[in-house]
Amino acid sequence: MESKTVDIKAGGGYTVHIGSGILDACGEAVASVIKPCRAAVVTDSNVEGLYLERTMESLRGAGFDPISFVFPAGEGSKNMRVLSEILESFADNELTRSDVAIALGGGVTGDITGFAAGVYMRGIKYVQIPTTLLAAVDSSVGGKTAVDLAAGKNLAGVFLQPSAVICDTGTLSTLAPEVFADGAAESIKYGVLTDEDIFKIFECGDVRSSITDVIYRCVTIKGRLVEEDEHDNGARRLLNLGHTIGHAIENLSEYTFPHGHAVAVGMVMIARAGELMGITEAGTSERLARVLSKNGLPTSTGYSAEELYTAALSDKKRSGDSITLVMPEKIGSCRLMTVSLPEFSDIVELAVNG
Amino acid sequence: MESKTVDIKAGGGYTVHIGSGILDACGEAVASVIKPCRAAVVTDSNVEGLYLERTMESLRGAGFDPISFVFPAGEGSKNMRVLSEILESFADNELTRSDVAIALGGGVTGDITGFAAGVYMRGIKYVQIPTTLLAAVDSSVGGKTAVDLAAGKNLAGVFLQPSAVICDTGTLSTLAPEVFADGAAESIKYGVLTDEDIFKIFECGDVRSSITDVIYRCVTIKGRLVEEDEHDNGARRLLNLGHTIGHAIENLSEYTFPHGHAVAVGMVMIARAGELMGITEAGTSERLARVLSKNGLPTSTGYSAEELYTAALSDKKRSGDSITLVMPEKIGSCRLMTVSLPEFSDIVELAVNG
Repeated sequence: MESKTVDIKAGGGYTVHIGSGILDACGEAVASVIKPCRAAVVTDSNVEGLYLERTMESLRGAGFDPISFVFPAGEGSKNMRVLSEILESFADNELTRSDVAIALGGGVTGDITGFAAGVYMRGIKYVQIPTTLLAAVDSSVGGKTAVDLAAGKNLAGVFLQPSAVICDTGTLSTLAPEVFADGAAESIKYGVLTDEDIFKIFECGDVRSSITDVIYRCVTIKGRLVEEDEHDNGARRLLNLGHTIGHAIENLSEYTFPHGHAVAVGMVMIARAGELMGITEAGTSERLARVLSKNGLPTSTGYSAEELYTAALSDKKRSGDSITLVMPEKIGSCRLMTVSLPEFSDIVELAVNG
Repeated sequence: MESKTVDIKAGGGYTVHIGSGILDACGEAVASVIKPCRAAVVTDSNVEGLYLERTMESLRGAGFDPISFVFPAGEGSKNMRVLSEILESFADNELTRSDVAIALGGGVTGDITGFAAGVYMRGIKYVQIPTTLLAAVDSSVGGKTAVDLAAGKNLAGVFLQPSAVICDTGTLSTLAPEVFADGAAESIKYGVLTDEDIFKIFECGDVRSSITDVIYRCVTIKGRLVEEDEHDNGARRLLNLGHTIGHAIENLSEYTFPHGHAVAVGMVMIARAGELMGITEAGTSERLARVLSKNGLPTSTGYSAEELYTAALSDKKRSGDSITLVMPEKIGSCRLMTVSLPEFSDIVELAVNG
């Protein structure tokens, strides 16, 4: 099995393994950084039937004593109640401080399992095995863990870097088209941020056959930003391109609008506002919208500027009376811009009605 | 208002203020380390009527914008459900990453508020205002936060050092005798650990009139141990004297047995086992039991050795197949001892039936 690796120098330092079929060697990969122990594999009801047994089998083969916890698939499970159930399951299975949690699945699974690992006995180790493109290029790397509160998305969580990330690109073949598209949106985001070559793969290349390279490039970019700014107070905030308006859309839709789809719309809208403000190169929002559409993603919603502004204010990126936005300059280059709330209101107005 | 201070070099570094009447100056004390902002004061239904308004008033006077959250008093509230309610309240009140949470109350309030601060938006600052002796000498300092799970006490939490601790000894005058006794047990523990002078105050001194000195000495000892071992993997584990059996008692009683009372029994039992093993100076357990009784604390329970052993195994101090105990050598000196589970079983047997 051929695989690429990216080393991330954050937390205790960890390696992201990317390759086809590597799930069957996940036990060895985990054993190379964690002494065999009890391993609590957390997954959802969709992934359970597809990959749980292969994962448990590989872990057993490498000397681990795996147990599993399965929760109902969907963003609706990413809450404090399911978090509590995972913690009680860890305790019922007598996990100790020297054991490990393993997240097998998409972003919801990774976020809630990482959170559980971060607070169980005040912190145990965890490993990410992303099975969606979105999780592979985004949430499985960087150590942001979370659940949603009634008031908004990802409002509770901890920073905890994983001990390893194992991304078997073979698992992406079972994704529904709209779930693959969700990850395409975040991948295209890295293209807009800093790497026009990624953007071009989605613009005119063969995405499926380039997927290992796409993930490798995205994770490399994210890794550098995370190393520079582990706790998200500086350069890492560039990763929020499209997310301020994106999170508002998710919130307004009561989380029925998928994350990547919302980010896609958010990127187009902020690029449009940027063009009208003279920050973004003319034509950027149109080129971006074309690529997103080609990859099965939406580029607009019916929400009004006022609705989006109000919903965006509950976003945790806000600090007191200002908000930091990521403004595209052109495909491959973006910058942070901190604005007052009235300025932000004007920008949302431009993005929707400009 | 006269006050003593102890500086703790852990987390970002913080000061513990100890003195009579200093609650009315808490706003200034907080303002000296945190720029005035929104302050979420979390307290319980017992403390609300006694000290909430004075706290809010002082915060307002120092330029803060305080809001409050009150939960039902008692260990029964230290769970994931109340934690969720606190987090939702923070979100509903639009707390941002630059705001502060303030724990006003005893150990339950401090532990759950610290946990909420540690995970709200992946971490905001918090301040401890302990109003019980137990919280003053123990839980308010050191950054251990937690809630209980069904399977055991303090099984979920984070490490997060406070930004300040403000201990108004005047608030201790409203404590019920058994609640004061609970804190006396933890104070006596510091005496057994390292400072026979503290022990002697409880043995033959006037505890009430020496209370500022008692708290100052206890916090100083705890501070040094926390500085040496912030994440509880080394010297800090000395603070668990009496806690392994103590936690088992609490667990068996379904948390109706108060923490300090359980620690009192746990200390006597481990000292008795230590004497029989030749580790502890003869007569220590008897002298300890006499001082605990004098201060309104129990020195035995009706639980069997087998019950205690089984309940103790769910304690998170356990790492795999061994357990680390704190063994008294004499009053003023203790040491850590890691034993196998069969050895631990024998020790519990000696402690109960020896």
